[in-house]
This record gives sequence, structure tokens and C-alpha cells, in this order.
Amino acid sequence: MEFPLLAWSAKLGDRSFDVLDETKLPEEVSFITVHTYREAVEVIRTMKTRAFGQLLTVFYALLITARKASEESLVADIEEAASALKSSRPTFAFGKYTELVVNWAKVVFTQESDQRVFLERNILGLLEKIKVMRIHRAKLAASLFADGDTILTHCNTSGELLLTARICREEGKNLSFYATETRPYFQGRLTAWELSLEHFPVTLIHDNQAGELLKSGAINHVITGADRVARNGDVINKVGTLQLAILAKEYGIPFYSFVQEPGKTETGADVTIEYRDAKEVLTYNHQAVYPKQCSAYYPAFDITPHTLISKIITFDSILHHSELPEGWNNNSKH
Amino acid sequence: MEFPLLAWSAKLGDRSFDVLDETKLPEEVSFITVHTYREAVEVIRTMKTRAFGQLLTVFYALLITARKASEESLVADIEEAASALKSSRPTFAFGKYTELVVNWAKVVFTQESDQRVFLERNILGLLEKIKVMRIHRAKLAASLFADGDTILTHCNTSGELLLTARICREEGKNLSFYATETRPYFQGRLTAWELSLEHFPVTLIHDNQAGELLKSGAINHVITGADRVARNGDVINKVGTLQLAILAKEYGIPFYSFVQEPGKTETGADVTIEYRDAKEVLTYNHQAVYPKQCSAYYPAFDITPHTLISKIITFDSILHHSELPEGWNNNSKH
Repeated sequence: MEFPLLAWSAKLGDRSFDVLDETKLPEEVSFITVHTYREAVEVIRTMKTRAFGQLLTVFYALLITARKASEESLVADIEEAASALKSSRPTFAFGKYTELVVNWAKVVFTQESDQRVFLERNILGLLEKIKVMRIHRAKLAASLFADGDTILTHCNTSGELLLTARICREEGKNLSFYATETRPYFQGRLTAWELSLEHFPVTLIHDNQAGELLKSGAINHVITGADRVARNGDVINKVGTLQLAILAKEYGIPFYSFVQEPGKTETGADVTIEYRDAKEVLTYNHQAVYPKQCSAYYPAFDITPHTLISKIITFDSILHHSELPEGWNNNSKH
Repeated sequence: MEFPLLAWSAKLGDRSFDVLDETKLPEEVSFITVHTYREAVEVIRTMKTRAFGQLLTVFYALLITARKASEESLVADIEEAASALKSSRPTFAFGKYTELVVNWAKVVFTQESDQRVFLERNILGLLEKIKVMRIHRAKLAASLFADGDTILTHCNTSGELLLTARICREEGKNLSFYATETRPYFQGRLTAWELSLEHFPVTLIHDNQAGELLKSGAINHVITGADRVARNGDVINKVGTLQLAILAKEYGIPFYSFVQEPGKTETGADVTIEYRDAKEVLTYNHQAVYPKQCSAYYPAFDITPHTLISKIITFDSILHHSELPEGWNNNSKH
């Protein structure tokens, strides 16, 4: 099975890599060549890439930094790049990944070439492992859906909902989708694009229509990605996720999220939410939509409490918050 | 007190009238001259005007039709115009107003000129009466708010929230506002424009941020207009109103609507909801945002059940649905 483009949105070259420019989709499938960690930070900050594409960008940026470094500067260069990359967007937990790479870079070998090989193999090996885990997670998600189900999603799950839809199709289960527009970046574009390319029916709605749609009875399940998850099952994801979960609860519709490992984050409240520039609310296509006197409020993410989530889909199981395993919910410590 | 422009968005001429083009705000305050009822229907359908502006457009179109009609054709011309105008947008209850005018046109006088005078006086008199009633309604709304309150609104209340803010200011109560963007027509523009012109603080949010904002504790009240209200207190308003009411309930924040007379509409379910063209979801500024294969779903309005509404603000009182007067809730009949 070919991995969806949005699920692996960067291509590694020799001393640079190409990142899919998600802001150009669906009109244009084009890539931005990244030569340095500084360019990688810029690509992340300006949201040319997002979600899983950001993680790939972080790893590839560290990898090309290593390739370009001299023997003497390797550790220092990796540390410099890691430090800039991990704080490129405040809400993401890039730190745990950049720390891994820094530690690998510090392992001492007698041959300098061995050190580079070790670093490269570790990075590429970890990415391959994540790929396999994501395919498994999509299989788990597929088990939640029945033939004829209609699913509402928000933002874009970096190809994972498409993977899920493909697996369902192979199993003879046909799914239909509704996608929210997801202002201001219209990530509904991405979801609509990848699903419709493979002939899955997709219907777009504005973000303010979700309540009416869920009330109408047309939707069987709501599913979103997660930018982060906490050990108590709180989900941190694209702003708008919280209200979808509340609306789904109001109408008795199950709400799921694809989640990763929680790391050390105890609850959603421990996560720093990124507040983006008011300009992104007040303009569209670089044109002002609102009067100058207006201010704007734009938290890029929101926190959905675990009590609003029917099940989280981890890399190895589908869980209610009451079933979180050891290492997740540390209630005993609180 | 000068009436807000959005609260009286058309100017009557002799044989034509000018309607504020709300799609051009805030960049440009410009008017469209309407000469015939057909042009009036077009202005309404294309949403150049909306909400109260539509009602003004209907009345003024009938008035200029009467002025242009011959003695023999007056009733027939008014009937033809009334028929086209009342069905210009399915969700609105224009019929009860156009019927009034048709009935006035049918009253027989010995002098033909008397008939025209009667018709004109009745139309202009009714509009004046509505103006006074709306000012009174704004005064009632003002009584709900305290100094320092922050209020979230959706779409645009045709100047009535501005009237309310002005009354509060006169009473020494300063209010701040948050306005939802209100896709796809960005009516948040209108709210932001009229409030910020008079130096009321306004902050814009995307439609998907309301849940997070209400959870944050920044908002004391949510208030919207109503395109229609039913006798049981259900409110029919711009799509997105329903989900705001659900979210307000989730966080214990009072939710109000400005409403008119319910007419014969028993419940929200009796109202025909207008489904607008998918193009309005799939394009922005005439540019396609989504792939061609996508469909879209765009109910222009939704129905907020009375159980989700803290109080409705009628022309003469502030009521919970359990307090609806005779002629409103006909529970005894059901």
C-alpha cells in the first residue's frame, strides 16, 4: 500500500530535503526545498507544513545538519539545530524527539564515520517504526466503523483517516466523510483533497455548521487527530476540536481521536497553547477583511477534556479514559 | 439618537430606493439603487442585504411598485410583486408582511389618489412603529448587561446590538464584544465595523474558536438575533447559532436572542430551512478552495430549541420559554 502523501509529506535528499507546501493544495502539489535548520523552522512557523509533516521536517533537518557538520562541530551543530527546532511552535512536544537525536549524536565512536551512520540509522529507523505504528493505528480505527457509516472530521489527520478509509474499503466497508472547513488555514482542503482523489465521498461544511449537521442525524462518528495527548487522556488539537466534542456529546455521537504517546504531560492544562498573530484572523489572502480597530483572538489549539472523548486510538489500542494503562494516567500520584 | 446604518440600511427615493451593499463593508459604504421588485428580489437572493435590510427592501419595493402602477393595475402589480418578494428566500416569513400590503392595496376608495396615500401611510407607519419597537427591545437587552461585561455575538443583529451598547454607555455601563467570523459571508465584519466605529472594543474569532473562548471564562453573555421565532420559543437564525447555544449551556453562560412576533409558526420544525448553493462553501472570492469532486452542505440557518435559550428578548419583555404569553406557546392545543 502506497503511503498517503499527507502521511509522509517530505522527501529526503542528500544535503537538503523537500517539504510538501500544504498551503498550495489542492491547486498545486509543490515542494519547498529546505537546506538548513533555519529554513526548517521557517517552514514550520509559517505552517507550510503541519502536524506529522512538522515531525518529519524536524528529523530531516537534524539529519542534514549532521551530514553537513564537521567531525568537531557535529554535537554542537545538532544541539544548535535541536534547540531552534524544538521551540519552533510552542504547543508541540518536539523536545522529546530532538533530545533523542542530541543524545545519539553524543555517543562516542572510535571512527567518526560510525557516529554518522549510527545517528542516521537511528533517525531513519525511528521514522520507519512510527510509519508502521501509524498503519497499525489506522487498522484499529477501521475496526470502529461499519459499512455505510458517515464520519465527520476536523482539520486534517495527516493521511491517517485516508489510510483508515482504504483499510475499510479493503474490508468491504464503504465510508462517507464530512470535513469542516477549519479556518483560517482551510485544512478541510487537505482532507477533501486526499479523500476525493481516491473517490471517497467528501462533503465540506463551514465550522459553524457542525451543530446543525450533528443534530440532523447524518453523522455516525466524529474523529480527529491530536497534536498532543496528556496522560489523563485530554487531547490537544487544532482549535475547534473541543467544540466538536461537546456537540457530539450533546447528540450522543461517539467522538474519537488518533493519539500518540503522552510523554510526561499529565493533563491538558500542562500544555502551552500557541496564540497566533491576529493578522491570521483579520485578513484573508493578505487582504484585510475587518476594520483596523478590531483585535482578534486566535489560540491555534484547544484542549478537549478526556471526559468528552468516547475513545482514544493509541498506537496499540482503543481506550476509554477509564482504561488508560500504567504510564498514562497517574491518578495514584495525585 | 441617530439610528445605526445597519439598523436602517435602505433609503427611500421617489421611484427607486437605495440599499446598503453589506457585502462591500467595511472597505466601502456603497448603495445599490433598486428600481423594480425584480431587482429587489435579486438584492435579497444574493445577500447584498440581509436580516432587517431584507424587510425594508420588501416594503420599499412594494411602495415604489404602487407609485409606478396605474390606477387599473395597482392591485395586480402589488400582488405580482408581493408574490415574488415573499418567496425570495424560503426561511423568511415575508409572507405576513406582503399579505398586509396586498390587503391595504385592495381597500377601495372613491378617489384613486386616496388609495395610494392610504397604502403609503400604512407602509411607512408600520416601519416607523417597528423602529420604535426595536429601540425598546434594545433597552430591554441593555438591562441584561452590567458594567464591564463581555458579550459574544454571532452574525449581525442589524444594528440592534450597537443600539444596546449605546444605551448601556449612556447608563455608564461599558461593554466589550467578541464577534464570530460567521462563514461564508463574514457577517462578523458588519458587527466589528459598526461597533468599532463607535469605539466599542471588538475582538474577532473564527467560528471554530467559540468553544475554547466560552471555556476560557472571558465571556459573560451570548446574544444573537433571530430571523424567525416560533410560538414555543425555538429560534431560527444564521447557521451556527445552535452550536453557540449548546456551547454556552455547556459552560453555564446565559444565551439570549432578539426575537420578533412568532406569527403562526408553532415550532422550529415548521420552518423551511434554505439550503444555499454548494459554491458558497467551496469557493472564496470566486476562487475554488476545494477540489471539484467535493460536495458541500450549506443550510443557511439552524433551529435552536427553546430549551437551550436562557431568555428571548421580545419587543416588550424578556422571557424564559416557560413564561411565554398567550398567543405564543399553544401547548394546550398539542
